[in-house]
Amino acid sequence: MSGQRDLKAYLKAQAQRVDVSLDRLLPGDEAGGLILQAMRYSLFAGGKRLRPILCLAAAEAVGGEAERVMFCACALEMIHTYSLVHDDLPAMDDDDYRRGVPTNHKVFGEGMAVLAGDGLLTQAMVVLTTHAHVASIEPWRVLYATQAIMRAAGYEGMVGGQAADLLAERQEPDLATVQLIHAKKTGALITASVQAGALLAGGNEEQVRTLVRYGRRVGLAFQIADDLLNLTGDAAQLGKATGSDEQRGKMTYPAVLGPVQARQTGEQLVREAMDLAAGLGQGAWPLVELARYIMERTH
Amino acid sequence: MSGQRDLKAYLKAQAQRVDVSLDRLLPGDEAGGLILQAMRYSLFAGGKRLRPILCLAAAEAVGGEAERVMFCACALEMIHTYSLVHDDLPAMDDDDYRRGVPTNHKVFGEGMAVLAGDGLLTQAMVVLTTHAHVASIEPWRVLYATQAIMRAAGYEGMVGGQAADLLAERQEPDLATVQLIHAKKTGALITASVQAGALLAGGNEEQVRTLVRYGRRVGLAFQIADDLLNLTGDAAQLGKATGSDEQRGKMTYPAVLGPVQARQTGEQLVREAMDLAAGLGQGAWPLVELARYIMERTH
Repeated sequence: MSGQRDLKAYLKAQAQRVDVSLDRLLPGDEAGGLILQAMRYSLFAGGKRLRPILCLAAAEAVGGEAERVMFCACALEMIHTYSLVHDDLPAMDDDDYRRGVPTNHKVFGEGMAVLAGDGLLTQAMVVLTTHAHVASIEPWRVLYATQAIMRAAGYEGMVGGQAADLLAERQEPDLATVQLIHAKKTGALITASVQAGALLAGGNEEQVRTLVRYGRRVGLAFQIADDLLNLTGDAAQLGKATGSDEQRGKMTYPAVLGPVQARQTGEQLVREAMDLAAGLGQGAWPLVELARYIMERTH
Repeated sequence: MSGQRDLKAYLKAQAQRVDVSLDRLLPGDEAGGLILQAMRYSLFAGGKRLRPILCLAAAEAVGGEAERVMFCACALEMIHTYSLVHDDLPAMDDDDYRRGVPTNHKVFGEGMAVLAGDGLLTQAMVVLTTHAHVASIEPWRVLYATQAIMRAAGYEGMVGGQAADLLAERQEPDLATVQLIHAKKTGALITASVQAGALLAGGNEEQVRTLVRYGRRVGLAFQIADDLLNLTGDAAQLGKATGSDEQRGKMTYPAVLGPVQARQTGEQLVREAMDLAAGLGQGAWPLVELARYIMERTH
């Protein structure tokens, strides 16, 4: 259908715009040395730019301009990338490949990979607090959006989720733990992405609240889809070995619900998210189509 | 002399106030689980609270109230602690003890220590962007102070300094490299501490500029003093084995300048810093005495 076709073109165009801005906000520089190389290596290792695109789309969904929140979109990708670099470390998930290329620590060594992650996280903060005046966004909106993003990234969000995930390996999977881990690990930053985009673009309270509800559903559905792909998808699509979660005894939705009910849950979440986005009007069409696409790619 | 006696009482009182606020800004909580425990373990492992105290003293030096910038002082200590936790990791400096107690990864494991550092850094950001309205500080001042702190923490500052330090081990020490590493690794956050304190407390441009110059000198002198203590001090005072820098072939001031000239350089920097602080008036006396104290503790 045409929505799908439009979405693919939209995703591609937006990802290219994000890449151009990322290159501007963390420019390659001889004097930057190995640490900057390591940071850029993972930042430009072929991410889909989902979080930035959600942020830009949320800005447009509330009637704002995507370009004005581009700095925030890029900061979100830096935060996402930092979390991948640290999660891949031998002391954590111990992954040698990510998106089909060697992980940061395989190329630069463990110490440098820890620092590359730290560098990306701090650069995200620099970007968030530096570029708002260019877009003449009210400072209180910047503070509020930054706070939401950092709560999502911190021990109440991603950091806490990864810690719970580490502790849960080899434990008996149960639904409550899976939900908690995924809500924190993936859901929190995805939700903050649409929340921050809407806030910075001048969205009102009602619009922001709707997008937070959208984000929670999309974040959860996205994780369920990822779990299903890990179970059944092909390695080329995934960029790493399939079945790796299962081998490791990772807590996943398919593991606690079975693949059929996991898929049903994902599809229900997607329907709710599409309704919420549609309620925001025509400008929210990419958010509607993005939600639809999440579960479709698992078919 | 009386300045010294006053300073000791001042440092003790301020450190206690900082500890109370840190406990409030990162409260212990059963539901927080192991990650929160790991974060609090290092945060309350007996730091001198130098950066928070500099931040509070800078606020008073420009005629502001220390209590209003307490949230920033605590964020600085969280950032400092995160950097220690990551620097101590086996893939970096591989230290088993810090301030006389086992390092974070020795107690909680490497994966959890990486996350505890990440959690402290992100919580610092949450604190910086959350508590300014309580003290009714203008949002642009918060954004500017946060930006200064994060630049100091990032790849242009601490992260870059630690990366350069990692790469420089076992290289022939030279003065330019030592200066660069120390300016980034220690100097940048110390400078940002007085800069942010002054900015948030309503300091004018001239005052902030003076404190940045003060901070650069104090940061460098502090590192020289630390290097001298590592060379000659006793293990009890240092909280870890003395001579460890030398064994590792670390770049230090005594290594490139010799201990006598390193001490002279430190004392010259301290004199300049004292003059700069004294120029701000009576309210800056703790900054004057703090600068004096840095080199005195190496005698």
